Amino acid sequence: MINYHIRPEPDQKRLLLLDQRLLPVQEQYFACLKASDVMQAIRDMVVRGAPAIGVTAAWGCWLAAVQLEKEGLDKSRYWETLLTEALQKIAMSRPTAVNLAWAVSRMRKAWMDNMPLTLPRLIEVWRQEAENIHVEDIELNIRLGAHGAELLSDGDTVMTHCNAGSLATAGYGTALGVIYASLEAGKKIKVIANETRPLLQGSRLTAYELHKAGVEVKVACDNAAALLMHKGLVQKIVTGADRIALNGDTANKIGTYGLAVLAKHFGIPLYIAAPCSTFDWHCPTGKDIPIEERMSDEVTRLPYPGGQRLAPSGVEACNFAFDVTPAALISGFITEHGVFRPPYFKSFAKLRELAGEGAKD
Amino acid sequence: MINYHIRPEPDQKRLLLLDQRLLPVQEQYFACLKASDVMQAIRDMVVRGAPAIGVTAAWGCWLAAVQLEKEGLDKSRYWETLLTEALQKIAMSRPTAVNLAWAVSRMRKAWMDNMPLTLPRLIEVWRQEAENIHVEDIELNIRLGAHGAELLSDGDTVMTHCNAGSLATAGYGTALGVIYASLEAGKKIKVIANETRPLLQGSRLTAYELHKAGVEVKVACDNAAALLMHKGLVQKIVTGADRIALNGDTANKIGTYGLAVLAKHFGIPLYIAAPCSTFDWHCPTGKDIPIEERMSDEVTRLPYPGGQRLAPSGVEACNFAFDVTPAALISGFITEHGVFRPPYFKSFAKLRELAGEGAKD
Repeated sequence: MINYHIRPEPDQKRLLLLDQRLLPVQEQYFACLKASDVMQAIRDMVVRGAPAIGVTAAWGCWLAAVQLEKEGLDKSRYWETLLTEALQKIAMSRPTAVNLAWAVSRMRKAWMDNMPLTLPRLIEVWRQEAENIHVEDIELNIRLGAHGAELLSDGDTVMTHCNAGSLATAGYGTALGVIYASLEAGKKIKVIANETRPLLQGSRLTAYELHKAGVEVKVACDNAAALLMHKGLVQKIVTGADRIALNGDTANKIGTYGLAVLAKHFGIPLYIAAPCSTFDWHCPTGKDIPIEERMSDEVTRLPYPGGQRLAPSGVEACNFAFDVTPAALISGFITEHGVFRPPYFKSFAKLRELAGEGAKD
Repeated sequence: MINYHIRPEPDQKRLLLLDQRLLPVQEQYFACLKASDVMQAIRDMVVRGAPAIGVTAAWGCWLAAVQLEKEGLDKSRYWETLLTEALQKIAMSRPTAVNLAWAVSRMRKAWMDNMPLTLPRLIEVWRQEAENIHVEDIELNIRLGAHGAELLSDGDTVMTHCNAGSLATAGYGTALGVIYASLEAGKKIKVIANETRPLLQGSRLTAYELHKAGVEVKVACDNAAALLMHKGLVQKIVTGADRIALNGDTANKIGTYGLAVLAKHFGIPLYIAAPCSTFDWHCPTGKDIPIEERMSDEVTRLPYPGGQRLAPSGVEACNFAFDVTPAALISGFITEHGVFRPPYFKSFAKLRELAGEGAKD
């Protein structure tokens, strides 16, 4: 069930990205020839989802180096400075996703560890490192999915929010990886995809990729969650995450916090499926996570280029892109190293150890 | 702040309805010449909101009689049977709103109380009775608004869901009547209008009428409620209702239940603003309220005629139009007779008495 929506083409010195803004109506690729194209793609959400952004950013670093070579700057004494600046810019193209900074710093490390390097040689090192990041993400999603599948029972209907699927990762998925792995293990699982306003990643992307993969999926408006839970139509909730603090507080797509409060009220477990790269070991609690506020138009107009106006002209919207769910409302974290339960202070210490060991491989 | 969106034109024997499906982009009136036009307008949501539906249905009864006269059936021995059947059909054009049945049965009573009547004389009686229902609704909204205004403090930001405003009533509003009355009383009040998927009555109608009336309003996606409450950006929640059971369980637009759970979690009072006609004294609890399930397309396509597809072709949606909020999550009911607090079993007995006295006026 691997979905190759991030397509590096090293020979053509470009990166193709499935333009997620146009789904599910059109399947069209966005071509990145330089680092600024990648930054635009990340900022404008051609590609979104923390792990997918990380993989894309890694390829963006490679493109930044390719671009300097194209411009003949490999002989300049400044190319290292220019490249360092480019990396800083790439790392800041979206404020919330920790994978972005993680991927860029891993690329920087591959450079530092192999110093001194000529620019052409660095391009080669980075092509390999971006590929490693890309393939490792798919592999760890498969491991994560297998751990998560143990939490789902045959016949469950799982509610998910936003898109933490193949399209949000290098090609398999975290929350949806859990669904795919459960189905591959022979369990009968249905999915309710919350449509996830304003950008409708649930109806446009999650329903699209699940339906394409033959999974039984229905969409629902975000505000229907309480009724659906009350009616017994939801057994588990599984979402992805954008950033997880040391205490388990979790930044994810706006609406996750509300779902978690409802899940607690109705006694339904809510799991966060996310790889170790989403855990921010430098972030003590949710209070330390900045919340991106995006432009009003995303809410007041339909989320397509030139989209129709939905609110009267002159009226603004509150448009926070994320919220932070307190750890106390989360039943467990599904990672590539297993499922981690409260108290998170303790279980995350174990995870951190395992993640450290993983890094030594 | 009276908004004349339901416009009877007795001389032209027609009823004009502001077509709310086209707002906020177009202001266009839908002309009803016969009862079936009115039923279509109610079913297709040209007009929506329980009290507005009631007023419209009253004018629909009048149009049913006008139509029989036009067709020369006033001499027929069957006109009373035909009219009785027409009234039954009108009463069933939407399943949840109790005002619909209430208005039709009040029209029937005006007929029965004046028996025997010729058809031309009944048309006259009904024109007057529909007008009474229309004007009384505006008057009682103004009384309701004044009671509700006492609950709001200067500087409050009030969150509301769907549209319980002038457009949902004969022309002033219940939940938004409370806002208008507070502003008229000199309080500074801001509003957050939840956009209210799938039909976006919050962004399309509530934001439209508030902005037009000069009220400071922002729209927000339904799923942002938890974050906005957590951030302290919401002091009160006021919504309308479609049907209130004897124990206080309240049917309202899908999403109200979830808001009420969140309000309880964050310690924010949630009030239901509704006239006595919304209380169903024959309905013991919320379990007895049927929930209308509407077609998938309302969710999977943009809510405009010929609207763009939002989910992939072949994927269905769960589309319950209402949910039922348990009484325990509701801080109080704002009515034309005052504010009623728990225990509702007791306070509703008082309300019922007052409503009965009101009917005797």
